[in-house]
Amino acid sequence: MTNNLIDHIKTYVVLSEKESSEIVSFFDYKIYKKKETLLFSETRCEELFFVAKGCLQLYFIDNLGNKKTTQFAIESWWLTDFLAFQNQKLSNFNIEAVENSKVLSISFSKYNELLDEFPKMEKYFRAIYETAYGSALMRFKYLNSYSKEEMFFRFRSEFPEFVQRVPQYLLASFLGLTPEYLSEIKRKQLS
Amino acid sequence: MTNNLIDHIKTYVVLSEKESSEIVSFFDYKIYKKKETLLFSETRCEELFFVAKGCLQLYFIDNLGNKKTTQFAIESWWLTDFLAFQNQKLSNFNIEAVENSKVLSISFSKYNELLDEFPKMEKYFRAIYETAYGSALMRFKYLNSYSKEEMFFRFRSEFPEFVQRVPQYLLASFLGLTPEYLSEIKRKQLS
Repeated sequence: MTNNLIDHIKTYVVLSEKESSEIVSFFDYKIYKKKETLLFSETRCEELFFVAKGCLQLYFIDNLGNKKTTQFAIESWWLTDFLAFQNQKLSNFNIEAVENSKVLSISFSKYNELLDEFPKMEKYFRAIYETAYGSALMRFKYLNSYSKEEMFFRFRSEFPEFVQRVPQYLLASFLGLTPEYLSEIKRKQLS
Repeated sequence: MTNNLIDHIKTYVVLSEKESSEIVSFFDYKIYKKKETLLFSETRCEELFFVAKGCLQLYFIDNLGNKKTTQFAIESWWLTDFLAFQNQKLSNFNIEAVENSKVLSISFSKYNELLDEFPKMEKYFRAIYETAYGSALMRFKYLNSYSKEEMFFRFRSEFPEFVQRVPQYLLASFLGLTPEYLSEIKRKQLS
């Protein structure tokens, strides 16, 4: 499963065999069962996660006790509470496996060692975060442009496989809909 | 005004005098008047902007012809349509000066040359984008946690100077409120 990480890095920078195996040695590899928690909110955010296989969600619990999904991560995505990770503070989010997932993780100290020893990893992460931030700006635009109903149809047409794969109550949470309203939208469209 | 950029970079990486002046040479420097446009949507996004002094906004026009602010950038912030810049595509946003502003800009080709010649600039931008993306995740959380009214009060307590500085109709647009509703909230609070 470390191949997935190396293949992904190689789409951004050139790596030798030796560099690849050295880079991999900075990571831990673990399998998480569906619904298993990788990060608890209000605990120190010590790890950055790479999804080799499966799907994770970053979520928080609102005042009414509802789980609200802020971000999904599927294959080749990185996930953590980046602000808390960067500052080694308590996390504002939980991270949970949506499916059985194969995950590589790196601690904050190892992450910094990795970046120091392999400056090309700075280039890789710079490109990753540049894309992630650019995509976040587009998401803010969509949130401010479309009704929640339009967001669902737009999301489904852009990411059809993802919509098939993720439980509907999680998709509803991500789009800011109640599961009941999402069912209603889908029913209306079928009728 | 190039000092502002160098001082900002130096909070992340060590730069010699020589490196500082070489890095600065990659940038153009320009003063924009209030309401002047730096980037038009549907044109190729060729530049990345650094605010040395002043304030910029990234916005789009919705279906009803209203300006919707997606992001502000004040001193030491970077702004562009990052996805469009990265892929050298047409921009999804406009960028406009909110105040008279002193701005450094770098073209896409110069940006890549800069990153190639000064790998420590990869480290700098990696850290900048890591923070920007982490902050975006927190903003999604707030958007999904608070009413628009609560968002305004929270925003005002976190960024009091900013709220003083930015015209109220822009702040309303950023928070997804109508200017009338924002005035009402503020009036209610005063009474």
